[in-house]
Amino acid sequence: MKHMIFGESHGTAIGVVLEGVPSGLALDLEQIAFELARRAPGKSALSTARREADVPEILSGVFEGRTTGTPLCAIIRNSDQHSGDYARLRDLPRPGHGDFAGSVRYDGCNDYRGGGHFSGRLTAPLVFAGAVAKQILARRGVSVGAHIRQIEGIREGSFLDTALSPALFDELARRDFPTLDEVRGQEMQEAILRARTEGDSVGGVIECAILGLPVGLGAPDFDCNVEGILSRHLFAVPAVKAVGFGVGFDCAAMRGSVYNDPLRMEGDRVVTETNHSGGINGGITNGMPVVFEAALRPTPSISLPQRTVSLSRHTDETLEITGRHDPCVVHRAVPVIEAAAALAACEVLEGGAAL
Amino acid sequence: MKHMIFGESHGTAIGVVLEGVPSGLALDLEQIAFELARRAPGKSALSTARREADVPEILSGVFEGRTTGTPLCAIIRNSDQHSGDYARLRDLPRPGHGDFAGSVRYDGCNDYRGGGHFSGRLTAPLVFAGAVAKQILARRGVSVGAHIRQIEGIREGSFLDTALSPALFDELARRDFPTLDEVRGQEMQEAILRARTEGDSVGGVIECAILGLPVGLGAPDFDCNVEGILSRHLFAVPAVKAVGFGVGFDCAAMRGSVYNDPLRMEGDRVVTETNHSGGINGGITNGMPVVFEAALRPTPSISLPQRTVSLSRHTDETLEITGRHDPCVVHRAVPVIEAAAALAACEVLEGGAAL
Amino acid sequence: MKHMIFGESHGTAIGVVLEGVPSGLALDLEQIAFELARRAPGKSALSTARREADVPEILSGVFEGRTTGTPLCAIIRNSDQHSGDYARLRDLPRPGHGDFAGSVRYDGCNDYRGGGHFSGRLTAPLVFAGAVAKQILARRGVSVGAHIRQIEGIREGSFLDTALSPALFDELARRDFPTLDEVRGQEMQEAILRARTEGDSVGGVIECAILGLPVGLGAPDFDCNVEGILSRHLFAVPAVKAVGFGVGFDCAAMRGSVYNDPLRMEGDRVVTETNHSGGINGGITNGMPVVFEAALRPTPSISLPQRTVSLSRHTDETLEITGRHDPCVVHRAVPVIEAAAALAACEVLEGGAAL
Amino acid sequence: MKHMIFGESHGTAIGVVLEGVPSGLALDLEQIAFELARRAPGKSALSTARREADVPEILSGVFEGRTTGTPLCAIIRNSDQHSGDYARLRDLPRPGHGDFAGSVRYDGCNDYRGGGHFSGRLTAPLVFAGAVAKQILARRGVSVGAHIRQIEGIREGSFLDTALSPALFDELARRDFPTLDEVRGQEMQEAILRARTEGDSVGGVIECAILGLPVGLGAPDFDCNVEGILSRHLFAVPAVKAVGFGVGFDCAAMRGSVYNDPLRMEGDRVVTETNHSGGINGGITNGMPVVFEAALRPTPSISLPQRTVSLSRHTDETLEITGRHDPCVVHRAVPVIEAAAALAACEVLEGGAAL
Repeated sequence: MKHMIFGESHGTAIGVVLEGVPSGLALDLEQIAFELARRAPGKSALSTARREADVPEILSGVFEGRTTGTPLCAIIRNSDQHSGDYARLRDLPRPGHGDFAGSVRYDGCNDYRGGGHFSGRLTAPLVFAGAVAKQILARRGVSVGAHIRQIEGIREGSFLDTALSPALFDELARRDFPTLDEVRGQEMQEAILRARTEGDSVGGVIECAILGLPVGLGAPDFDCNVEGILSRHLFAVPAVKAVGFGVGFDCAAMRGSVYNDPLRMEGDRVVTETNHSGGINGGITNGMPVVFEAALRPTPSISLPQRTVSLSRHTDETLEITGRHDPCVVHRAVPVIEAAAALAACEVLEGGAAL
Repeated sequence: MKHMIFGESHGTAIGVVLEGVPSGLALDLEQIAFELARRAPGKSALSTARREADVPEILSGVFEGRTTGTPLCAIIRNSDQHSGDYARLRDLPRPGHGDFAGSVRYDGCNDYRGGGHFSGRLTAPLVFAGAVAKQILARRGVSVGAHIRQIEGIREGSFLDTALSPALFDELARRDFPTLDEVRGQEMQEAILRARTEGDSVGGVIECAILGLPVGLGAPDFDCNVEGILSRHLFAVPAVKAVGFGVGFDCAAMRGSVYNDPLRMEGDRVVTETNHSGGINGGITNGMPVVFEAALRPTPSISLPQRTVSLSRHTDETLEITGRHDPCVVHRAVPVIEAAAALAACEVLEGGAAL
Repeated sequence: MKHMIFGESHGTAIGVVLEGVPSGLALDLEQIAFELARRAPGKSALSTARREADVPEILSGVFEGRTTGTPLCAIIRNSDQHSGDYARLRDLPRPGHGDFAGSVRYDGCNDYRGGGHFSGRLTAPLVFAGAVAKQILARRGVSVGAHIRQIEGIREGSFLDTALSPALFDELARRDFPTLDEVRGQEMQEAILRARTEGDSVGGVIECAILGLPVGLGAPDFDCNVEGILSRHLFAVPAVKAVGFGVGFDCAAMRGSVYNDPLRMEGDRVVTETNHSGGINGGITNGMPVVFEAALRPTPSISLPQRTVSLSRHTDETLEITGRHDPCVVHRAVPVIEAAAALAACEVLEGGAAL
Repeated sequence: MKHMIFGESHGTAIGVVLEGVPSGLALDLEQIAFELARRAPGKSALSTARREADVPEILSGVFEGRTTGTPLCAIIRNSDQHSGDYARLRDLPRPGHGDFAGSVRYDGCNDYRGGGHFSGRLTAPLVFAGAVAKQILARRGVSVGAHIRQIEGIREGSFLDTALSPALFDELARRDFPTLDEVRGQEMQEAILRARTEGDSVGGVIECAILGLPVGLGAPDFDCNVEGILSRHLFAVPAVKAVGFGVGFDCAAMRGSVYNDPLRMEGDRVVTETNHSGGINGGITNGMPVVFEAALRPTPSISLPQRTVSLSRHTDETLEITGRHDPCVVHRAVPVIEAAAALAACEVLEGGAAL
């Protein structure tokens, strides 16, 4: 399965083409709408007030309610655009954003309005694609779920110490701010509101798990190993700056005698006592849940004055951004990380189906 | 440039094929030998006592001392093998290792001796390929360097707070245990020896930087973004379980007002005050050093007894591994991480050369 | 540059996404419309009477009249559909068409109306993509042209014996039935009308040339050689069943002393006396025009009764197709073959720009 | 399954790496040797007198006689080299050969001896890879066979009019000069000897078939259609200049009423009366034998004087090639075309195994 995402925040439409979707899948449009609603802004003070209808139009690949198996294209028309808000940014790139690198990369021809192709809005077609991927995975008994593990300095427990199940994933998906621990969740939301009040933004960490992948998928080789496949998908999500499997960076501080997950029989299945390696050894699934974290940097667009440059005058300048912005994108990014994981899981399963 | 690595630890030979090497490069074989020596075991009590000659034989792609531009194959014959040491592991997979997942993946047909294709020995051809990549990069003014940032709980300062230069990279490369801070380096080595004495192993973190990449390489899109390209290469290195760019996972705890790297003019160049984003914004290079960390799990092979299972009898078992093993692979992995980074940098540059 | 084509003949829309378009190209929409008009049906008795507006809507990748360098998506809405005409074909696959193979491939879930995703209508987005590719090539001094070399038994002279120039290509492109020899062209058209009158269809051959590609692009290796790149693009065009470079299949009957193109100096350029090898030796461009032929099978949809089977009843049946059909698609396929060649030429140039 | 071929005719060794081989295949080394012997030179007056031992050494990917599933590398050491024969060719490129295009492509750094990486000798590792692919296919009930259809002007009947079976393929494979019609085969061999006597060379056509591929593999899309996959593999074979499926170029001269293969029931299987489309409709297998032709140009190296240029002096020159050369490579190319077809068939089967 391959996908291509296109569009700019304030252009005509954004969308995605999915090639390699299996035929005959009765597409659950409500589930797709549900996933898109999870990432939609405008639901609370935690996000930008901008509202997006985000109703996808399927242009191809579905016939009489079922996937045809031929390329599936879905688009979302853009609307509710305040392009004027962004005009100054053409000359004054936002620190921490793709504005400057993008203007060099695209010779100043990229659509700067609303971040253009760099906009977080482009994650809507990714969530669409991920929703289709989740339905494909469901037929194979594979499910994907995630929670907010950290916002600013506040960090909660791990999926590695939690009894994981599709039911838990469903419950988390229905929440606007999915955490395992409600108290910690409240503290995280307060941290976001505090940053918002102060004209600032915060980052965070999302932990995600894939249940049901059989043992023996992947390979140690370049472009075949499961960590590599997942990380390729995850780093294509805007704002992701770090990815770790199992205990992630914490593995560095551990002794082998602690880190190594002891093997034992559970009936006729081989399982591990702990899951520090996140369900992957030697680039291959070991039958335990595939668990990983992704860290998202704080939103670049903040109201506080920032130092930048004028691309036209080559002078140092101060930038003050007005308009509606997310003080934090982490909670809206939860279904996006799940979508990337679902697409990666399809790729991992495909590799396992070879010859 | 594409590469394919092949071989098993105790097979006939290991090697690599590199396709897409530019023609006419006067290959510096001494530099290749130098890089291979950096990862060679047997140099101190920090590594396994196993000695490998690791003299590569170039089978193709070099003519009269210069690269031909056609596929370059180099092999390293295997020798000094104690295959008997490993025979028991066929039935008793090592916790934390690819043994179990691999035996399922390959239907029990993989070469189990010395880890087979999962062996860290396979990083020798990767270092060979990286050495060629470094010579290609040198012609473009690009250099790669790395240091050991952390061993077990001991962590030193970052490249992000260091004046980076090719000269510093050269100096680090000449050291057996390359750290920025000598005292911290001593403590790290002591941690390794302590683990060794206790029959245990430790993990660590390597920080790596790429200097000289021009602004504007990469794209935000899937399979084009610089973080994705680097992570694909890095997760193909055995033992790597987490990758972070710039401040990595620490970005999650930072406010936007702190994280966002302020832009300013330096002569007619746009630079950033800090480099928290590790030289990449929106998946595109911003002209600052590309800096990232990779965390390596502790070595799975330890002398302490570990719980495992018998694959043939389906019983719980205790495993005690004898033989020569690395209490830590982090210092030997420094040139390996650099090699992966150099191959990724070539791929990033190629993308920038398109149409 | 990558592309993905999507859509079904009688679905909501057809379209294409182009990734890797260079930024800053002032897109000539009239030239795109001109190319689309060349393949449009309904212009004469030589084609189906079906009319298609075929006005593409650009959804992304163009801003203020210039390409942004980010993925460019264009769609064409479907209309003027007589879906009822095709209902019977769901059960009675057309001989020579993808109906039967497609129904197995897609488990009977593909959109059968008007050929669905197999429809020649899908070549409209390909022509769109080719028109963009031609504009990219024009900046590099590369041009693409084609003529109808054969219809049924009537065959005219070759580009290999013709003085090729962009001006000739322009002249050919302006003609509804582009041949080098007007008399032969008349005979070919009469052959088409004769087949039409008799409820039958005819195939033909298109010869195409690419001018201006520099010497030294490509490589002998798999997936790098110029013949392989072109053939991948050409066989993705519906109806193409054979591809030959230079004299193509005729090379088999030639002696080396005749076939081998003698080299000679022309000023300080090395040229060949003849161009039997079609501008490619060892998978690499040799600086001469890249010339090739593609054979297109006769249109499967004919009015004459044909033997087929009922997929539901597993019985032998007779099929009589009514409705509007092309007695020949070769003249409409000329801009399609050029589009495939233009996309391939972009890929060849990109390979040459590597490291 | 991916493969990479490396080596130069007079370098240290040639070889191939195969990635994605299924594990547990008991590799039949005799069958591999048999296939390599089929393409070996020096067996009769029809080929060059040069003898090659061509004993492959397997470096990896096989353990205890079975494939491990990890990358399989095999090399063949070079020997019996008369490098002096070729020294003049560095300056005087052979007409019809990759010498000139290659010297530009590789900046004069390619190994010119014996054609270097352009040498037909590089087809030995391709035959090795194809022999492995054939063993993989055999487990799936798929077999590949070929015959010489044409030498110079002498052409015999087609596989399309022949009862195809694995037994026929075996019989053909055991012959030095495999044709369907013995008389025609004699005439072809005489044509080769005549060319040889006259210091000239001849080309020809190989027809190949793949039996046993199930209905419904492939797709009409770019890089998925079966014709495109096969042609990519076939054009990577040196000397191939044209490829056609089913009746190939002859389709152009046929009416739809003749070309379209009538469908009928055979028991509960849908078959076609004829197989003009070569077992592929809409880019998808239809269950009939996949049949195609490949035309090979005459060997460029002939004894007759030829016009060329001096690359150093930029003058017109006359070239007279001495040394041992093949007056025809078509009969030696039969197992090479089969190898390319077998690798392509594996790729087609893999695509069909997706999700």
